Amino acid sequence: MNQVITPSTVPTSERLAQLHRYWQATNYLGAAQLYLRYNVLLDRPLLASDIKPRLLGHWGTQPGLNLVYAHLNRLIQDTDANVLMVVGPGHGAPAILANLFLEGTLGEFDAHYKPGLVGLSNLIRQFSWPYGLPSHLVPGTPGQIQEGGELGYSLSHAFGAALDNPDLLVACIVGDGEAETGPLAAAWHSNKYLNPATSGAVLPILHVNGYKLSAPTIYGRMSNDELTNLFTGFGYQVRFVGGSDPMQVHKAMWQAMNWAHEEIQTIQQQARMGMLNGVPAWPMLILQTPKGWTCPLTVDGQPIENTFHAHQLPVADPAGKPSQLKTLETWLRSYRPQDLFDEKGLPFVDVVSICPPDDKRIGMNPHANGGALLRPLELPNIADYAVTIPSPGTVSVEGTHTLAIYLRDVFRLNDHAQNFRVVCPDETTSNRMSPMFEATQRAWMGPMIETDEFLAPDGRIMEILSEHTCEGWLEGYLLTGRHGLFGCYEAFIPLVDSMLNQYAKWLKVSKETPWRKPLASLNYLLTSHVWRQDHNGYTHQVPSFINSVVAKKSSVARVYLPPDANCLLSVMDHCLRSRDYVNLLVASKASQAQWLTIDEAQAHCRRGMSAWSWAGNEINHQPDVVLACAGDVPTNEIIAAAAILREHLPDLSVRVVNVMDLLTIMSPEDHPHGFPEAAFVQLFTPGKPVIFAFHGYPMLIHELLHHRTNPLRFHVRGYMEEGRTTTPFDMLVLNNMSRYQLVLSALDRVEKRAGSGDLRMWCQNKLTEHAAYIRRCGQDMPEVMS
Amino acid sequence: MNQVITPSTVPTSERLAQLHRYWQATNYLGAAQLYLRYNVLLDRPLLASDIKPRLLGHWGTQPGLNLVYAHLNRLIQDTDANVLMVVGPGHGAPAILANLFLEGTLGEFDAHYKPGLVGLSNLIRQFSWPYGLPSHLVPGTPGQIQEGGELGYSLSHAFGAALDNPDLLVACIVGDGEAETGPLAAAWHSNKYLNPATSGAVLPILHVNGYKLSAPTIYGRMSNDELTNLFTGFGYQVRFVGGSDPMQVHKAMWQAMNWAHEEIQTIQQQARMGMLNGVPAWPMLILQTPKGWTCPLTVDGQPIENTFHAHQLPVADPAGKPSQLKTLETWLRSYRPQDLFDEKGLPFVDVVSICPPDDKRIGMNPHANGGALLRPLELPNIADYAVTIPSPGTVSVEGTHTLAIYLRDVFRLNDHAQNFRVVCPDETTSNRMSPMFEATQRAWMGPMIETDEFLAPDGRIMEILSEHTCEGWLEGYLLTGRHGLFGCYEAFIPLVDSMLNQYAKWLKVSKETPWRKPLASLNYLLTSHVWRQDHNGYTHQVPSFINSVVAKKSSVARVYLPPDANCLLSVMDHCLRSRDYVNLLVASKASQAQWLTIDEAQAHCRRGMSAWSWAGNEINHQPDVVLACAGDVPTNEIIAAAAILREHLPDLSVRVVNVMDLLTIMSPEDHPHGFPEAAFVQLFTPGKPVIFAFHGYPMLIHELLHHRTNPLRFHVRGYMEEGRTTTPFDMLVLNNMSRYQLVLSALDRVEKRAGSGDLRMWCQNKLTEHAAYIRRCGQDMPEVMS
Repeated sequence: MNQVITPSTVPTSERLAQLHRYWQATNYLGAAQLYLRYNVLLDRPLLASDIKPRLLGHWGTQPGLNLVYAHLNRLIQDTDANVLMVVGPGHGAPAILANLFLEGTLGEFDAHYKPGLVGLSNLIRQFSWPYGLPSHLVPGTPGQIQEGGELGYSLSHAFGAALDNPDLLVACIVGDGEAETGPLAAAWHSNKYLNPATSGAVLPILHVNGYKLSAPTIYGRMSNDELTNLFTGFGYQVRFVGGSDPMQVHKAMWQAMNWAHEEIQTIQQQARMGMLNGVPAWPMLILQTPKGWTCPLTVDGQPIENTFHAHQLPVADPAGKPSQLKTLETWLRSYRPQDLFDEKGLPFVDVVSICPPDDKRIGMNPHANGGALLRPLELPNIADYAVTIPSPGTVSVEGTHTLAIYLRDVFRLNDHAQNFRVVCPDETTSNRMSPMFEATQRAWMGPMIETDEFLAPDGRIMEILSEHTCEGWLEGYLLTGRHGLFGCYEAFIPLVDSMLNQYAKWLKVSKETPWRKPLASLNYLLTSHVWRQDHNGYTHQVPSFINSVVAKKSSVARVYLPPDANCLLSVMDHCLRSRDYVNLLVASKASQAQWLTIDEAQAHCRRGMSAWSWAGNEINHQPDVVLACAGDVPTNEIIAAAAILREHLPDLSVRVVNVMDLLTIMSPEDHPHGFPEAAFVQLFTPGKPVIFAFHGYPMLIHELLHHRTNPLRFHVRGYMEEGRTTTPFDMLVLNNMSRYQLVLSALDRVEKRAGSGDLRMWCQNKLTEHAAYIRRCGQDMPEVMS
Repeated sequence: MNQVITPSTVPTSERLAQLHRYWQATNYLGAAQLYLRYNVLLDRPLLASDIKPRLLGHWGTQPGLNLVYAHLNRLIQDTDANVLMVVGPGHGAPAILANLFLEGTLGEFDAHYKPGLVGLSNLIRQFSWPYGLPSHLVPGTPGQIQEGGELGYSLSHAFGAALDNPDLLVACIVGDGEAETGPLAAAWHSNKYLNPATSGAVLPILHVNGYKLSAPTIYGRMSNDELTNLFTGFGYQVRFVGGSDPMQVHKAMWQAMNWAHEEIQTIQQQARMGMLNGVPAWPMLILQTPKGWTCPLTVDGQPIENTFHAHQLPVADPAGKPSQLKTLETWLRSYRPQDLFDEKGLPFVDVVSICPPDDKRIGMNPHANGGALLRPLELPNIADYAVTIPSPGTVSVEGTHTLAIYLRDVFRLNDHAQNFRVVCPDETTSNRMSPMFEATQRAWMGPMIETDEFLAPDGRIMEILSEHTCEGWLEGYLLTGRHGLFGCYEAFIPLVDSMLNQYAKWLKVSKETPWRKPLASLNYLLTSHVWRQDHNGYTHQVPSFINSVVAKKSSVARVYLPPDANCLLSVMDHCLRSRDYVNLLVASKASQAQWLTIDEAQAHCRRGMSAWSWAGNEINHQPDVVLACAGDVPTNEIIAAAAILREHLPDLSVRVVNVMDLLTIMSPEDHPHGFPEAAFVQLFTPGKPVIFAFHGYPMLIHELLHHRTNPLRFHVRGYMEEGRTTTPFDMLVLNNMSRYQLVLSALDRVEKRAGSGDLRMWCQNKLTEHAAYIRRCGQDMPEVMS
């Protein structure tokens, strides 16, 4: 591992020829996928009837992807490198599928695509065909860890994959369109967080293709000086490979790959001998080739190659226009398919002689099917971290602090496996989770000074002020078979809403892909939540991520609102053991009253929701009203409301229900955690009014309850987008969820009885007192000048 | 305008002293805001009882903000520059408030804060106080266009503000924490889109403060060489200003401001004389000063200044610890408040002699209250663009193409005012909106080549493959009183979910701020939607942005699902006239059947939803079932279902209702567009079953209908996260929303009658035929090899 392997530095003409023929074969297969339904090897002249009835697919990025794939193959052959390929450019599937087909892995994962004429025909015909091969990379694509849909995440995924995989080389192709996105732009700084002593390497290959859909790319029109400056500034060593003469580009790419590989090995060797200081200057390549390289220069007089017209279909209507059919045939024959494949559809030996040995093929990289590598975490006994509860509400703690002590020991117990990380936009300390620093540090490769705290190159807490990069790193880490947690302020996690959309889609399709093994779940811990923004105010009040997670497929989405520290421990323990879910946990970092012993908490969390008899005032198991709560602050308030009712109206029968696992309130037909209707009715009664205090937007509860018996009796309070710089209690009042307002709402729904009127007045007085207090605060100014 | 104004280049010692005293005064006021409740000018020794009972606020960024503000004041004095200041760093409010107070504008906007002891006491006491002054910039802050909540948008906002404001200089302070975010990183490329001939300038000032919350910033630990390379690569001319000796920094900053101002003027002059080619190298400043500069070096032996401990409260517990009280007093007195303010609390003349004349003060910049500058768009008559409809369903058009012809003329009619722009992540052509290029081009300052299309420096369509930058530009443009439209693929607009959260919050609070005038609405047109992803497949199917908009305050949120091109014209016309809303429009780019004449469309859109009698089969105004639809594809399918019912079960009374304005289905207590209950019941009947085909997630409709009469009779179909590369019709089948499934659903809900059974069988046969067709597609392979 610590020896620098020098690959053959001189490209022989024989191997260059092999490379080129392999490249021609992948280009042919890629172009054929776009167009051909029959006559897939052009055994006879091309007819309009050979063309697919509807053309859907993209050519522009294919030749570049094929070039990189071919040269990675050569590098693997020469160096035995362990290469995971991450493909950023959109619509790259036909190129990658062509390579996977040629190296044989596609057929090994799906028998339809075995080498030979049948498999080759299937590949070409099934592309962009209903229920066939999609235009983007998908979970069903061997060797891939990234969907080809929304752009911008290749680089953060690549770094996430390389972490703690010291022998892995992640070759990451970044599209020049993709490079314009914010998440990609931020991810270049990942080099400041990756320790070459203990992690693998990322080789970024920026593919400057020149055009997006129909406009030039920014990176395509920057000068080489600008590009060099920019990426040198980001901390990389830049090498350009470019041109339009394939053999020249092959030679340059060969040498560039060798250079990059040697630089990486040198950096790793130095780091592993303890001789590296600071952020190493990792190599990166900038590949500048024409958009749609090797397609027709013009079609019907219109320039195509090296223009944006080559982005999608260079020849737009070959079935309809005879001149275009001829152009297409000339183009396809330019790759000389008869010289590449024999009559059985098998590639000639020299065409695939550049492919690596079986288990080293890119499509076979084990890290791409991370679930198969996944080792369960060793988890401590949560009872050892439990808060002691003499009786409900008598102890106050910061729940995230308690959790952090447990997580500290998760780091310790799994130190030998190096397979657990926490990502966070620099909020670990603010979130009261500093105890984790007793076990590990913040990852940091940059310069350090004496007054810094908790920084180290091998730190396992990754803090960058970019939620996108945090999410991308974690996704890459999970997809390659490890475990992690994203700790974030609740208000700003919607920054990754769209990344969650795409990841949840990946998970759903992965589960439907037989060879994909379950991954560790994607766990979010949201703190500094909407109800406790004492000085941040209105901009920091955004509980919408719950809605985002709930909108995901029910086979994937899980939402937990632990009401206290012991429940938080219990549910985190569960989440770290779970697989293939998106687990959302919301818990305040503020000190709050505690309710359940660890045993009670475990029973409650296992059940998902339960009645808390000690909080209610239930008479003969016949409640007149149910007070329900989901979320730590709402729980506190509902318990206070119940206490008021107990004291003032002792003959009102009140049941308190705490909902920890939010989706238990859904019908079981809508979510697997949904309580059976009978159990739901047992808890909430068949028809009594329910006053429901919820952490987030109240409308969401109505949505979740839709299929339940008599949902209109649920009266939900929650965050109504009312807030400002004010006291935590005033936040509740502003949003109609204070204990007094909850009591009033309960009184509105139950039969009037002796004492109701007095209690109503008492509550209104309390609210009037509060209003006066707030008015005094607002008037705590010497004088208003007119 | 075209003359370069040379400011006094030599800082005289007198004016340097003024600058410094102004800076001291703002630093004092900023620090005092964090701590003091009484004794605000330290007229007597500081007592523990003078300290606020709860300390909330941040010091770290204040001295840097104050420094920049002071020097901008000086620059304005010397050059008469028209400066809008955009403040990126979080928690910067006390500094900006101190400056606004000193220059007098704070008191002009709010009489509580007039110059003098009363105002000064109010400023200091009301900071981070319930209902007082928040820790972030808010709409109530004069001179500001950006909320200080979620970080990352200062630079794109600044560029949006500078567009089409040729005389404006937008000074944009970017925090070094903020600079780590993706949206900020992408926005540096905005220089490729701003034409100095017709737009103003942005002066980015990267404030390298060294620390985020508790870890170093990336930019704080990059070498100056790296920083120079990086920003040179982005295309800027970089100048460093740094140090910890205030007078040295003042001198350097003075010269740097002059340099930047001259460079900007030179660029603008050249451009306006037609002598500029390509992207100009705009100046930018990198300000490197200690975190929490001028606060105590140590507190109780712990280093504070220039460490992350200076981020929030340098002195953590002055009320509780006598030693800290003393440290605080020493710190506060280091600014010599008695030399800054007289006994009436008024600053000595020389302290504020650096402030610009009244109307040039930063807090008075008119562009910060864009609504006051807003000129309505001149809009063409939509009838001139209408699709002629001989009868419903007989004509097919691409609705976005029709709309683009109208928008082309919006560009033309408002060309003189230069106040309308479209932003888009390079999808204008793909979205069939190329007709706009007949009136304007894509904005592009970079090099151009012959095969490019529709690029020009003064293009008004802004295409960058960064939804974040598109949104940021548009927000900046709207906030400064102009108009615009964001065209986007539906699947990827959730990238800006969190930006929408923050912008909607800004709008809500702006409406509550008396002096803020209404802005043009933020208009989204989402195309390439979930139902027509014929080759993009599952990753491109995300209708969640509707949920995101609906979750916003009902005073802000509007959602329109025009069923055809004439409705799209009508609703766009409405949106471009509207103010202070977030208008979401979703419309397919595919060719689709058209239903309403322009007059019918206008009436329908005015109403929001209506029954379409021609589509139904209503007998005696007594429908047995209502078929409702929202969205263009669902409308098509519901009309087909109604036609089937009409043909096969002519005695079934069917009403078809189209919902164009989605939020009309909400109760009027939930949304101002909500139909009165009587009108709702008239449309949907009091109790008949409703089969509702919806564009997005079906659960959302349940949520919206919650307060309606008998909501359980609504049976909603919509996107259930089932999709892949398949036919448009199969997408409907997969999600249970095809015409046949809708008919079956209707049959399930109405009384059985003669013919029901046959029709049921007929539908099932149709579905079986479809399944067989899809199976054949899937099997269109020569052979499966075992």
